[in-house]
Amino acid sequence: MLATPALQPRGEGRGTPIAAVVLTGAEVDQTAGLLTLRERQEFAVLATAETHAAVAANPIFGVLAADVVTRRVVARDKPFALPGMSVELFAVPGKVALYLEDENPALASETGANVGVELVCGGRRLAYVPGAAAVPPSLRERLDRADVILFDGTLFRDDEMIATGTGGKSGRRMGHMPVGGADGTLAALAGLRGRRILIHINNTNPILIEESPERRQVEAAGFEIAEDGMEIVL
Amino acid sequence: MLATPALQPRGEGRGTPIAAVVLTGAEVDQTAGLLTLRERQEFAVLATAETHAAVAANPIFGVLAADVVTRRVVARDKPFALPGMSVELFAVPGKVALYLEDENPALASETGANVGVELVCGGRRLAYVPGAAAVPPSLRERLDRADVILFDGTLFRDDEMIATGTGGKSGRRMGHMPVGGADGTLAALAGLRGRRILIHINNTNPILIEESPERRQVEAAGFEIAEDGMEIVL
Repeated sequence: MLATPALQPRGEGRGTPIAAVVLTGAEVDQTAGLLTLRERQEFAVLATAETHAAVAANPIFGVLAADVVTRRVVARDKPFALPGMSVELFAVPGKVALYLEDENPALASETGANVGVELVCGGRRLAYVPGAAAVPPSLRERLDRADVILFDGTLFRDDEMIATGTGGKSGRRMGHMPVGGADGTLAALAGLRGRRILIHINNTNPILIEESPERRQVEAAGFEIAEDGMEIVL
Repeated sequence: MLATPALQPRGEGRGTPIAAVVLTGAEVDQTAGLLTLRERQEFAVLATAETHAAVAANPIFGVLAADVVTRRVVARDKPFALPGMSVELFAVPGKVALYLEDENPALASETGANVGVELVCGGRRLAYVPGAAAVPPSLRERLDRADVILFDGTLFRDDEMIATGTGGKSGRRMGHMPVGGADGTLAALAGLRGRRILIHINNTNPILIEESPERRQVEAAGFEIAEDGMEIVL
């Protein structure tokens, strides 16, 4: 979930500067934050039809009262305006949210269930991709025009959660390509011109450990590792 | 939501000491925390049939995998065992969760949609009532046997959110009796023998302000005001 600010804070008391929330999918970590924005302040939720349908199927999101919060369906590859910026959703290989999976979910399909976000602001571009199962040529072309790329850094190794005993699934089974390896993110995004920052980092990922070999490898490849409170000037 | 610990932390990595979660209702502030407990660690969720039905109607709670998280329906006034304690749900006047309201919801009904929790541990009793629309004699009798009472301190005055411009509803419309006034909580719980601690305090409530007249009134009446990190020895 990516919250975009209005040009200035609004209202008194519980006012927030959030004018719009753009969802890249319906996973808990993309949508649950909406439940903390339920204080009857106006904002818009923008997402694909697939993501809106997944959210709407949960009555609990009814706390975002329809007379206050506008839900707008947006298509991929069609730019739309938000205060101070232009925004576009684009295809990223991935899967449906965990709680919508059937027994054999498609793991790297390009549907409205998992997308990336491109922001254009003052002529500068930012790409936001919290979940990617692969980087096909069309996605790489899109990322190559961005000045800043925030990209899926969930796991370093595909079997990391199994090896650490924190889960039974591989990264690819969860819709996330690994950071390392011949078919990982460092290789897939090599040579792009923009600033590359890994986000959505799982707490098993050794790049979070100062001085770890994996962190050194990421830094040597020219990637940054996001941290709490990080400020990005586009 | 009240999380009860197992006797010791379990597992490595993502292990938590939480063995069971008892829900008093299906409001966002009682249930959304479940979404952060989705890391495939075993625990039980205990609640009335009404609350379980409200949760189950939201596919997003499917992230609590059925092979790991057990959902147990418990009836009011029937004690059940959790590690190290006995627990009982009891009737508290209230209403259904906001997102389940119809146009004219019952505001102070005694149903399974809103309950309190009584814990008995080592012969000592704690009552937990985060939302109460009124205190009928049967509830006062129940509270009078508790050594510690954690009670709804949402608003000091019934019209507080309207007066502060943070909402359009009175406290009673939201299922919460006020702390102050002739029919408020200080009056309703006067003379009880247990330690009385106000919880679930809204950020408009002036009892949160040091030295405010309302805070002084609460303290003079022998009530405590809960705070982050508070530890209670039963």
